[in-house]
Amino acid sequence: MAQQKATNITWHEAIVTVEDRERLLNQKGCVIWFTGLSGSGKSTLANAVEQLLHQQNHHTYVLDGDNVRHGLNKNLGFSPEDREENIRRIGEVAKLFADAGTIVMTAFISPYRTDRDQARELIAEGRFVEVFVDCPLDVCEERDTKGLYKKARAGEIKEFTGISAPYESPLDPEVTVNTAELSLEESAQAVIASLVKTGLVPADN
Amino acid sequence: MAQQKATNITWHEAIVTVEDRERLLNQKGCVIWFTGLSGSGKSTLANAVEQLLHQQNHHTYVLDGDNVRHGLNKNLGFSPEDREENIRRIGEVAKLFADAGTIVMTAFISPYRTDRDQARELIAEGRFVEVFVDCPLDVCEERDTKGLYKKARAGEIKEFTGISAPYESPLDPEVTVNTAELSLEESAQAVIASLVKTGLVPADN
Repeated sequence: MAQQKATNITWHEAIVTVEDRERLLNQKGCVIWFTGLSGSGKSTLANAVEQLLHQQNHHTYVLDGDNVRHGLNKNLGFSPEDREENIRRIGEVAKLFADAGTIVMTAFISPYRTDRDQARELIAEGRFVEVFVDCPLDVCEERDTKGLYKKARAGEIKEFTGISAPYESPLDPEVTVNTAELSLEESAQAVIASLVKTGLVPADN
Repeated sequence: MAQQKATNITWHEAIVTVEDRERLLNQKGCVIWFTGLSGSGKSTLANAVEQLLHQQNHHTYVLDGDNVRHGLNKNLGFSPEDREENIRRIGEVAKLFADAGTIVMTAFISPYRTDRDQARELIAEGRFVEVFVDCPLDVCEERDTKGLYKKARAGEIKEFTGISAPYESPLDPEVTVNTAELSLEESAQAVIASLVKTGLVPADN
């Protein structure tokens, strides 16, 4: 270890700040919040955006059902209270990642405006990018990637968003992407363009 | 945007892996879990270790009472169940950060062996570093940085670790640091030395 480095430290105020971490990563920590119906393509789009950002050497992470529902939120069900707590925890974890300087993406249906707005309120102004993954219900249902719509129509799943539970579309999202009309690449580029426009990531020259 | 880059992507398997992120950050994601009595110096030590790692261009984050108890875990109290859930959530969040490739430190009393072992089980072999911040109770109580021992002795705080609730020392921690005998710098270097020894971070030449 380089002792001379260590002795430069003001030990009693040894705090690495979010600005320090952002300087190291050469980016701004922020939250890209994907919302939309089941099957609208949130996770696929988040992963595509992550790959574009990663190619530009950005540090990124995607929170989705796979790593959150089976871990942090495995003790939550699908009651209204549990759904709210699910989104609350995701918002708080996203805040921690943004504070770490990471570009964090969340890919959850998050059907309620109030819950999404509460997540937004946790994050610094300009660092929360709501992406409405807008895809008509009939297209999502036809895709039925997980076979959930079929079960919901058969009544095997109660309170399924879009069928038997409401989805509240964002009123003023930073980005809207119609995944029934745009290709995945076009959709991902639309999200990146928004990040570049607001200065969250530099243009890739 | 560089269109030619985007078209190189295999869009349907567009997953950035933990290995990709670790390559970008030039480090291994891992969890450094500090445990010890209130006043033993966990947060101070975690911040000092973070500063040393940051100086070596490592991407780090510290989870502690300030950013967790007031956020993710603000709906938890101090009952046995809530304490257990508190540590469970911290373990799960630490796992997410390690999966992001970040060196994450947790600074919580975490008095129960079972809870700490459950956190360890979430993390890949060799990526969990338990640091026992070993400081005699009388020294912690004399420091009483937050005035909590005084309140605990007066009975104003119930079930206070070390006074009226147990602290279970780690049986086989990766690192033990006696903060009553070592300086903060020596303590931080002891943690770094362990990370270097096990290859989690390269030696700083």
